[in-house]
Amino acid sequence: MKKNLIDLTRYINGSLVGDGNVEISGVADLQSVQAGEITFLANARHVDRLVNTGASAVIVPKSIQHAPVPIIRVDDPYLGMALIHTLFVDKSFSADGISPKAHVGEGGDLSTEITIGPMAVIGHRVSIAERVTIHPGVVVGDDVTIGSNTEIYPNVTIGKRCIIGKGVIIHAGTVIGADGFGYATDKGGHHLKRPQVGIVQIDDDVEIGANCCVDRATFGITWIKRGSKIDNLVQVAHNVVIGEDAIIVAQTGISGSTSLGNNVVLGGQVGISGHLHIGNRVMIGSKSGVHSNLSDNELVSGYPAFSHKLWLRVCAVIPRLPELMRDVRALKKQLKNQER
Amino acid sequence: MKKNLIDLTRYINGSLVGDGNVEISGVADLQSVQAGEITFLANARHVDRLVNTGASAVIVPKSIQHAPVPIIRVDDPYLGMALIHTLFVDKSFSADGISPKAHVGEGGDLSTEITIGPMAVIGHRVSIAERVTIHPGVVVGDDVTIGSNTEIYPNVTIGKRCIIGKGVIIHAGTVIGADGFGYATDKGGHHLKRPQVGIVQIDDDVEIGANCCVDRATFGITWIKRGSKIDNLVQVAHNVVIGEDAIIVAQTGISGSTSLGNNVVLGGQVGISGHLHIGNRVMIGSKSGVHSNLSDNELVSGYPAFSHKLWLRVCAVIPRLPELMRDVRALKKQLKNQER
Amino acid sequence: MKKNLIDLTRYINGSLVGDGNVEISGVADLQSVQAGEITFLANARHVDRLVNTGASAVIVPKSIQHAPVPIIRVDDPYLGMALIHTLFVDKSFSADGISPKAHVGEGGDLSTEITIGPMAVIGHRVSIAERVTIHPGVVVGDDVTIGSNTEIYPNVTIGKRCIIGKGVIIHAGTVIGADGFGYATDKGGHHLKRPQVGIVQIDDDVEIGANCCVDRATFGITWIKRGSKIDNLVQVAHNVVIGEDAIIVAQTGISGSTSLGNNVVLGGQVGISGHLHIGNRVMIGSKSGVHSNLSDNELVSGYPAFSHKLWLRVCAVIPRLPELMRDVRALKKQLKNQER
Repeated sequence: MKKNLIDLTRYINGSLVGDGNVEISGVADLQSVQAGEITFLANARHVDRLVNTGASAVIVPKSIQHAPVPIIRVDDPYLGMALIHTLFVDKSFSADGISPKAHVGEGGDLSTEITIGPMAVIGHRVSIAERVTIHPGVVVGDDVTIGSNTEIYPNVTIGKRCIIGKGVIIHAGTVIGADGFGYATDKGGHHLKRPQVGIVQIDDDVEIGANCCVDRATFGITWIKRGSKIDNLVQVAHNVVIGEDAIIVAQTGISGSTSLGNNVVLGGQVGISGHLHIGNRVMIGSKSGVHSNLSDNELVSGYPAFSHKLWLRVCAVIPRLPELMRDVRALKKQLKNQER
Repeated sequence: MKKNLIDLTRYINGSLVGDGNVEISGVADLQSVQAGEITFLANARHVDRLVNTGASAVIVPKSIQHAPVPIIRVDDPYLGMALIHTLFVDKSFSADGISPKAHVGEGGDLSTEITIGPMAVIGHRVSIAERVTIHPGVVVGDDVTIGSNTEIYPNVTIGKRCIIGKGVIIHAGTVIGADGFGYATDKGGHHLKRPQVGIVQIDDDVEIGANCCVDRATFGITWIKRGSKIDNLVQVAHNVVIGEDAIIVAQTGISGSTSLGNNVVLGGQVGISGHLHIGNRVMIGSKSGVHSNLSDNELVSGYPAFSHKLWLRVCAVIPRLPELMRDVRALKKQLKNQER
Repeated sequence: MKKNLIDLTRYINGSLVGDGNVEISGVADLQSVQAGEITFLANARHVDRLVNTGASAVIVPKSIQHAPVPIIRVDDPYLGMALIHTLFVDKSFSADGISPKAHVGEGGDLSTEITIGPMAVIGHRVSIAERVTIHPGVVVGDDVTIGSNTEIYPNVTIGKRCIIGKGVIIHAGTVIGADGFGYATDKGGHHLKRPQVGIVQIDDDVEIGANCCVDRATFGITWIKRGSKIDNLVQVAHNVVIGEDAIIVAQTGISGSTSLGNNVVLGGQVGISGHLHIGNRVMIGSKSGVHSNLSDNELVSGYPAFSHKLWLRVCAVIPRLPELMRDVRALKKQLKNQER
């Protein structure tokens, strides 16, 4: 595939400086970019890196006016690059059908335009829409529904009755619909398992990383809404609701029945207690632990978490605590001496 | 299945207020409960939620005397609900046999009353007792023993020689019996792998969540004792011993050779160092890190962990540290001025 | 296999006290060692444990001069034990070939001297060198290269084009080459996936634990260099570089584009932010969070991390913060009274 700079500029709504007839056949990063390829510069401060670039064009922030190579000036070079890169790697779906080495149960409703790899196991009464790819080793339980254009990577497990939307990506090893962690403890201290009879529902355009866990609800649904993106090794407990367009970084855990609003951002290794509500556009710093509800737009850090701004100031004091302790002791002594 | 309220009340040792002949055919949560179903109310403060309920009966705490619908009064509605719910979902085991698409090694001792799903791989000389379910994609190594009524969910791996008890549940993606993380480092800084020749032993009625890791011992056994319940993404290192009836919440890690007493509760994202002993009934707050032994009944939090009560008071001071620092500076200045 | 003590002493470069003709046929820990076996004592303080040992020989630190049984005195008994244990468990590789129940794509270059277990799926154009073991349920993507003597445990997923070196061990459930977590967010708050077109390269003698994630690079490579050892449930994000001979303990996460020098040691549950450089021989305490570059040989702890030595002193103050707060209040009051 080749695209000229005029077309690419229009595609990302930028403004072109240089020869619009230059043809681009690929995308690369600044370190490895070669002739015929386009790259991007995220930060105008690094404009000197363009001097000896081999790139045929560069997507740059608007503050850059000209460069030794053709440039496309945009508000957000990162976004421009993502758009153009997607354009170049977007390959049309090719339906390879169901591998004779896969196992498919009975009573299903499978589009003919799908790929199911070898050693995949599809349960009974499963519904799979068009342009879905099920990679090798995936296990899909009975009565699962999978929407169109979804891709399930190897060795994923999807438990019975779960509902997966359209354009969803689930990376390898992730488990959707294991039992929630719920017990009632008797007087002898034994833990009686509470049946977990709910499901997981994952809405359109959600992406879930590798080796994550999204538990099924005790009753009702554990729900990840449209457009949310979840990194690797994340724990989503039973009856959690994650709003639209969340960004959840690796190794974070969300406890049972907690709900998140839309556009929430959670850093890595965050923990959130159960039965809370986290408002829209809340951002939680990495490694924070949240024990209380958060209102819209709050930005918190620490454990237990409080205002991120205050947390930054607290962090400046922490390494000086031994000194502070010494000062207070000295003051006490001084005052005691005065009193004599 | 239908049960009348007299029978259900007797079953959970409660006291009934209302018509004992009412028949119950299912269980639901308070939000979605319908006629013919029973639900529960955990907290007497929310008694007003019973006014318009569609439930045919409600399990309530003893402090509630009467309600618009029949009620079963018990000490612990949560436990009563778990008991009744289990009664309604308990389906008898149906042995589907060994899928022709599974692979089973030689010399095994497999009950005829089992289910082994497609694409499961069972090694040589494996012993599997009656009413065991091995879901698709599970890999069981050579010389493994699995007790009766155990259920192994998809894509679990159980390494050679490990011993799994009766009534055990292991959720999808979990790895039992990977090598412990043990090396000896030579003078050149290279790490020589120490052979890990022990096993993992999991006793009866243990439940282990999804995508956990329980490593085999260097020598001897890594041991999870009867009735312990482990959430998702938990790390149990080599030679760890977990006592009976533990509750271990998601993403917690226990380092090598540490032993836990009985009825220990670990919050989420806890870390415990190696070679420690944690006493009976110890509770460790979420995200805590434990670097020293803990006696029976201790309740700790923080990193490094100390008394939970003290930790709560410390947490109240932390956000005020910048203010404290300012105060101390002011005091120093004041005293300096006095001295002049 | 049997070895006499003269040979074993020479093998680990120790000095023997006792009968060199004693024959050893196995290795065990101090608790369970029996006649005919050798064990080790790591710490000279525990020398009394040798009094009633059933061992036929013991590897001891040099500070121990003699004992009731033959001893091999060495600088590092732990290392000596690892060497001798490896000698005894080292079984020669036996090539079982490709299971008829595995699936192998086209155009590959597979040594005849390999073992590929049932239900393993090997993509197209895969290269596998001699003495490689691919356990059941492993999924290897197209165009992957695997070096000699490497062992891939069950249910591992290796994404397309990744490069695995010689003598590598990857434990069960680990995912190599899932997409990096990269998005560009548009003005509407929707996250556009950035294509992740790089690979993962794992060099010789690396060991990776169970249920880890090593993401493929956005462009270029995510790179784990020779001899590094990674525990379970570790997250390695896109474009991370891990130097040689690292030790990375369980549940640690390294964010995108961060590079580690050689001989780095990371405790458990550590988090490192993205785009940082961590120098050679840096050690980071468990549960620490690192937000800035670290120079060679730094030893840090805490969150955000600072000098480990200082951190130890800070930890001593933390539980005394309520007391400190009270003292400062008292001082303020005292001074106020003085002023009157």
